[in-house]
Amino acid sequence: MSSKPSIPKGTRDFSPVEMIRRDHIFNAIRQVFRLYGYQPIETPAMENLSTLLGKYGEEGDKLLFRILNSGDFMSDITEGELIQRESGKLSAKICEKGLRYDLTVPFARYVVQHQNEIVFPFKRYQIQPVWRADRPQKGRYREFFQCDVDVVGSDSILNEVELIQIIDEVFSRLGLSAIIKLNNRKLLSGIAEYAGTDKVTDVSTALDKFDKIGWEKVKEELIGKNIQEEVVNEFFNVVGVERMNNEQKVSFLNSILLNSEVGKKGLLEITNLLLLLKNLSLKSQIVLDLTLARGLNYYTGAIIEVKSADVSIGSICGGGRYDNLTGIFGLTGVSGVGVSFGADRIYDVMSTLNLFSDEMAHTSAAMIVNFGAAEIYYALKILDELHRNGISAEIYPEPAKMKKQMAYADSRKIPFVVLAGEDEIKSGEVTIKSMGSGEQKRISIGKLSGFILNF
Amino acid sequence: MSSKPSIPKGTRDFSPVEMIRRDHIFNAIRQVFRLYGYQPIETPAMENLSTLLGKYGEEGDKLLFRILNSGDFMSDITEGELIQRESGKLSAKICEKGLRYDLTVPFARYVVQHQNEIVFPFKRYQIQPVWRADRPQKGRYREFFQCDVDVVGSDSILNEVELIQIIDEVFSRLGLSAIIKLNNRKLLSGIAEYAGTDKVTDVSTALDKFDKIGWEKVKEELIGKNIQEEVVNEFFNVVGVERMNNEQKVSFLNSILLNSEVGKKGLLEITNLLLLLKNLSLKSQIVLDLTLARGLNYYTGAIIEVKSADVSIGSICGGGRYDNLTGIFGLTGVSGVGVSFGADRIYDVMSTLNLFSDEMAHTSAAMIVNFGAAEIYYALKILDELHRNGISAEIYPEPAKMKKQMAYADSRKIPFVVLAGEDEIKSGEVTIKSMGSGEQKRISIGKLSGFILNF
Repeated sequence: MSSKPSIPKGTRDFSPVEMIRRDHIFNAIRQVFRLYGYQPIETPAMENLSTLLGKYGEEGDKLLFRILNSGDFMSDITEGELIQRESGKLSAKICEKGLRYDLTVPFARYVVQHQNEIVFPFKRYQIQPVWRADRPQKGRYREFFQCDVDVVGSDSILNEVELIQIIDEVFSRLGLSAIIKLNNRKLLSGIAEYAGTDKVTDVSTALDKFDKIGWEKVKEELIGKNIQEEVVNEFFNVVGVERMNNEQKVSFLNSILLNSEVGKKGLLEITNLLLLLKNLSLKSQIVLDLTLARGLNYYTGAIIEVKSADVSIGSICGGGRYDNLTGIFGLTGVSGVGVSFGADRIYDVMSTLNLFSDEMAHTSAAMIVNFGAAEIYYALKILDELHRNGISAEIYPEPAKMKKQMAYADSRKIPFVVLAGEDEIKSGEVTIKSMGSGEQKRISIGKLSGFILNF
Repeated sequence: MSSKPSIPKGTRDFSPVEMIRRDHIFNAIRQVFRLYGYQPIETPAMENLSTLLGKYGEEGDKLLFRILNSGDFMSDITEGELIQRESGKLSAKICEKGLRYDLTVPFARYVVQHQNEIVFPFKRYQIQPVWRADRPQKGRYREFFQCDVDVVGSDSILNEVELIQIIDEVFSRLGLSAIIKLNNRKLLSGIAEYAGTDKVTDVSTALDKFDKIGWEKVKEELIGKNIQEEVVNEFFNVVGVERMNNEQKVSFLNSILLNSEVGKKGLLEITNLLLLLKNLSLKSQIVLDLTLARGLNYYTGAIIEVKSADVSIGSICGGGRYDNLTGIFGLTGVSGVGVSFGADRIYDVMSTLNLFSDEMAHTSAAMIVNFGAAEIYYALKILDELHRNGISAEIYPEPAKMKKQMAYADSRKIPFVVLAGEDEIKSGEVTIKSMGSGEQKRISIGKLSGFILNF
């Protein structure tokens, strides 16, 4: 093989520096999830296709990565089927498994499969990669990471409050200013009713694209779905009340949703939620955004979406309440609510804002210079001393030229280099050199760890 | 859908309790890797099949999970090819990608692909799942986790020393007694030469099965490969010197490998390694085991394998030196050495020995009882107070009957329940109940965190 090897398009290798920055994000998220009493689970990368198919719409089915059956995968296929060459039909025969597309459907499957072992309300988090055969482009990958946090088995609005506290705390720990947008699917239904249509799904799906394609295109799409132009206009008059603050929007909705049962329910939910949130000292801005729809049809109550206040990049976290997610697997009456953090976008926002500190780059705090076979036992003793004190450290493996060893410490951004030749060994000391200032100092081996820890 | 959903055979869901125990293992491993200056990387779940094929032998190729090409995967196939129905040929046409089979080949690919960004010697670790279409059985899964640690770009024996220190430290932190078995591929070559054969690969492959199938079957296999019976016997006479200790084995080998260049090299390496190890205060037992071969043909020097001293379960960690791993991707002259920890087997050993402490089971330290809308603001204040002090805590989301809320705290193994009704609110206090002893106590809200932290 002569050309350099490569990886499939839309996938990524993560270098040490990237890993350490990503871990910083994952750890902040994980710590906050745990602080609020959520428990971790993991599910397999592969699910049965019967679990995945039909859950993400027709488009989603096409974006599933399918895994070829092992062994003689052709044995069950007739000649007729072969010659018809229908990719769709054939793939169903030669593939039984697929890679997970998100963490929500595997979670619903998990809850139903393990319902007898689970204590409800079940508060779980899950941080794992997902795979989609989307066309790769800037910021969109075929393998990317989701951090989901959900509670199922409780329809209390306190769960929504808690999730918003979690969002607020995560972004505050990461140093990001967040705008948390809220809406409620029942409000959208009420507004649609007020405007004169019952096609809430069409309306939500179209509304979801507003950010990308603008009002005019959304209107066109709705009119194309046989909703009258006056109805569409009326709907947009209500959801487009941009200049009002949250309270003004609520009281405006109060005045127009008098006759809509579902609308009044939605209004009660959002009023309660805003009231509870007002009493907390959140750092994020909370915005009632009636244009927020998040295309997913399984939302039945609260809709949540988070944007960075400083970088325009789409949503960095989102979710909502779904009253019947586990219903698709035969378990009804389990209401849930959850949000998903997009680790990759959060990474991009933090990079743009230079929020990763430089010290995240290195791992070892000290490198011990290798002088050769005679000095190696003393070097190993120093290493042991440092490790016992929890200081990450390494010996340069070869007795190479000093310049080469120093160049290694330098490019690894190791802050301290420890030298111990014949002289130092005789007196039970070491010479420690700070790579930043170039200063060096001779101290006893027993004082070395303290020196590094107190620097 | 009426029947309960399931997951593909050989895969697993991990429940919260399992996750917390597994994290305990991964964290111990990760912390030790970092202590020794190793840096994390991750590679994608999917690799190009051209990267994976031919790297694991014919058997391995069959065990790769292949991913069906997206879109119209049939378009490039002629009718003739279809009707021939050759699964092997066809799968090559309809699948370009596969799931990674181990972490070693992706690492070699990574090193070659990113050689210009890497500082050598490159010390990396990688903790990720791998997938094999093996027949599932007890303790063998189709998705399992490997924790690999390697250093490439240095042929110093100090790297082997460091890896053995890492192994020793990891198992010591996990509370496991480990037996670290060592051998050297060059020694095996020398012994084969002494016995009179140059078929070292056949010998190693057969020897690797000794644990499972015994001497007699191994002999049969070798004789079947046209190695003379006397040669096989002579070989086994040497490697089977079980009753000798490490020093005796070394001096015995010294006496018979006088005329083998490769054997003398191996002897020098193993002597150096044992000498350096002897000076360290390792807790694990170090055994020179001449029967150790680890079928993998890419090993060229040290061979390492670790067993639990208390549970008979096969190897829990293993690896060795490979002088030309990156050669398969066109980069020669990069020697490397590494080991892989088998997280799933380590989990099984720790379960068998009851090494997981009970407190690993719960996540929240306190649950605040929900008395309803009037008391909820006070409850949220308590929650905030606990969270600020880093205490994981939650409010029961519904104002349910006390019995139900208590049952939840009990089954979640939450050690403290906090009650704050009308009375407590008036006096700025809370009642804290220890779920273990049943005792309860009234204290001011300001003293709550201290009480829990000092318990």
